[in-house]
Amino acid sequence: MDVEIITIGDEIITGHTVDTNSAFIGRQLTGLGFNVKYKTSVGDAIEMMEEAFQLALKRSQLVIATGGLGPTEDDATKKAIVKVFKRNLIFHEDILEDLKARFKERGVEMPAINQNQALLPQGANFFPNKTGSAVGICITEHGRIFISLPGVPAEMQQILTDSVIPYLKGLKTGRALSVVKLRTTGIFESQIAELIEPGLKLEPGVRLAYLPAYSGVDLRVLAAADNEAEAGEKAQKLVRYLESTVGKYIFGREDDSLESVVGQLLLDNDKTLAVAESCTGGQLGMTVTSVPGASKYFLGGLIAYDNEIKIEQLGVEREIIEQHGAVSEPCAAAMALGCRKLFDADFALSITGIAGPEGGSAEKPVGTVYIGLASAHANRARLFKLGLKREIIRTRAVYAAMEMLRQEILDIK
Amino acid sequence: MDVEIITIGDEIITGHTVDTNSAFIGRQLTGLGFNVKYKTSVGDAIEMMEEAFQLALKRSQLVIATGGLGPTEDDATKKAIVKVFKRNLIFHEDILEDLKARFKERGVEMPAINQNQALLPQGANFFPNKTGSAVGICITEHGRIFISLPGVPAEMQQILTDSVIPYLKGLKTGRALSVVKLRTTGIFESQIAELIEPGLKLEPGVRLAYLPAYSGVDLRVLAAADNEAEAGEKAQKLVRYLESTVGKYIFGREDDSLESVVGQLLLDNDKTLAVAESCTGGQLGMTVTSVPGASKYFLGGLIAYDNEIKIEQLGVEREIIEQHGAVSEPCAAAMALGCRKLFDADFALSITGIAGPEGGSAEKPVGTVYIGLASAHANRARLFKLGLKREIIRTRAVYAAMEMLRQEILDIK
Repeated sequence: MDVEIITIGDEIITGHTVDTNSAFIGRQLTGLGFNVKYKTSVGDAIEMMEEAFQLALKRSQLVIATGGLGPTEDDATKKAIVKVFKRNLIFHEDILEDLKARFKERGVEMPAINQNQALLPQGANFFPNKTGSAVGICITEHGRIFISLPGVPAEMQQILTDSVIPYLKGLKTGRALSVVKLRTTGIFESQIAELIEPGLKLEPGVRLAYLPAYSGVDLRVLAAADNEAEAGEKAQKLVRYLESTVGKYIFGREDDSLESVVGQLLLDNDKTLAVAESCTGGQLGMTVTSVPGASKYFLGGLIAYDNEIKIEQLGVEREIIEQHGAVSEPCAAAMALGCRKLFDADFALSITGIAGPEGGSAEKPVGTVYIGLASAHANRARLFKLGLKREIIRTRAVYAAMEMLRQEILDIK
Repeated sequence: MDVEIITIGDEIITGHTVDTNSAFIGRQLTGLGFNVKYKTSVGDAIEMMEEAFQLALKRSQLVIATGGLGPTEDDATKKAIVKVFKRNLIFHEDILEDLKARFKERGVEMPAINQNQALLPQGANFFPNKTGSAVGICITEHGRIFISLPGVPAEMQQILTDSVIPYLKGLKTGRALSVVKLRTTGIFESQIAELIEPGLKLEPGVRLAYLPAYSGVDLRVLAAADNEAEAGEKAQKLVRYLESTVGKYIFGREDDSLESVVGQLLLDNDKTLAVAESCTGGQLGMTVTSVPGASKYFLGGLIAYDNEIKIEQLGVEREIIEQHGAVSEPCAAAMALGCRKLFDADFALSITGIAGPEGGSAEKPVGTVYIGLASAHANRARLFKLGLKREIIRTRAVYAAMEMLRQEILDIK
């Protein structure tokens, strides 16, 4: 069944609010096997909504709209529905009573304007709203289903989960879908393609997407089939192929983050980590500690921005910096070694580089980053060339450092 | 001029990626006085794109699409453009040379598949991409403008800012607009409203918007008039009123960041800064050093995640932690004091708090954060209650710390 999602509101059109509702609905409906084909956003003007509703009802069997159901004048979705479906608004006493009771519970008298919320298009079903005043509206006509939900994300999500999804599960949804996301790091999109594509044969109904970000490239496998088992098997077949070609770079699946995967590896092996950062200025520590419970394996770090700090706190020999510079393999290695000692940690990572825009030279251009690692078994550093933009260089350096640690722990095991 | 924004990608349609690109573009274009009327999202299938492009070109004078410009097979936007505009793809040697040079700079050989990126629809202009391989494409035909940009947010933003906006500014947009953004921090949206609204009188054509973020609340003044001078004067009148009521909280304008404003204050006063971080794990250091040239005033920091590090490295007395806990006013003050000494800095900031989701108690719930400051004149700490979510708490703490330093430097002067 083809689906169109319509999000309504001037704040969405002008970009002052990022539309997260359509992503939430899209994920839920895709998971149920619906084919989300279109997403549209329109402002609060009635005629724009009418036009969007008409077009959506023409090209999709199921239309889900969010927003514009509040009690105030600028909430015009119901007016547009009434026009499109040519129906009158009918007063529902039970809805009003329920609303009044909830205001009373909170010790507040219901503002009169909320009476509007008990007016629904004739013949519509409604889905209860547990926290807000706008109920969900459902109209079926000529084989089309039109559902209108409030725009407040928490209210929309509650109604969708409690009422809309159970309702939709009762309908035939066509094909079953299986979606798997493999997360890679340390390799370019084009390099992955070169490894994958020569031997790649996509079965009918199976799609592969590359989703690049600065932290790595995600590979999304999407398989459609007549039933769930078949879709799952098709997806798994491609997943196995991807693992056989680029498995080394796959650190996790779905919502796994590299920081949580590395954290779990440290926990599983009962090891601790400390960091020494120059050009990233704390971003590696911040990323590692973005995982709740990181205190179980992360001891701390030194932001050694000034060279004197590298010498005094981390014990990097002055000669190393004078001879090779602070951005050098020996300096990165010495930083990691000193950091491991200072924090009495099992593993230490260090980052020193030129994040720009200034400080680059012909020999060491902006983007030159050395990442060091120290453990009971190793003390080494590696050169990376991470691009030209400060923010991107720093983010890539953080993920490259974590990946270096992941490979090290996997090698030891 | 009516605008339609089209975002392309299966990951957007299925909700696996939240579309932030259309919000960014919407904000920028609204700020320029364009009338963003439609937003549409479609998947990666060529025929869906074709349909969306055709419809958009029918109902809008300017169409901006993002996504689907990568070098791999699933990136089909160029194929759809070629069909809609009935043009051939032409090879551009200069684009290929530029791309090869950039790969070389990073010490990597360009994968052959990237040659696709030098193929552009006949007669199209292109906008350079400074970080990625896909250039922006611009086609004008029958009074319509069609612009296609890559989907990676940083690349899209760079091309939009550097090339598309200057290009669009050259087109007529109707009335003259003046937009001023005042940036505040350390005060809630509702508190600002209470200070501003009693005496607020908005002239016709003038609008005021509150744009809250975790780092603070921006106030956007938008004034429309028949000519630029008049629009500018209207906007300035409201700006002066806002400065008279909430000026204390305004740290900058437009793209000023708190970190760059604080950095400039340190530079102007020839002072240095060091940081000691517990729950933020390096985010304060990272934010301070996100400003190019921060090495002129930022010496470094200690990420004292483990309590022993606070004691050993920062010299916090063990009794303070035993008696008051690591999340306490005396501990935060001692951390700042010890940090100032350790790094021999003029100013030191410290952050210690409970970022959750675990570790909270009745007395010190999640969101409890103490921020400390040490200078030649002061050593104190202050309690903040910063919400319930880990990421938000950490971001708010970082901005609260920088604001504490800003006020301190302003007070000394």
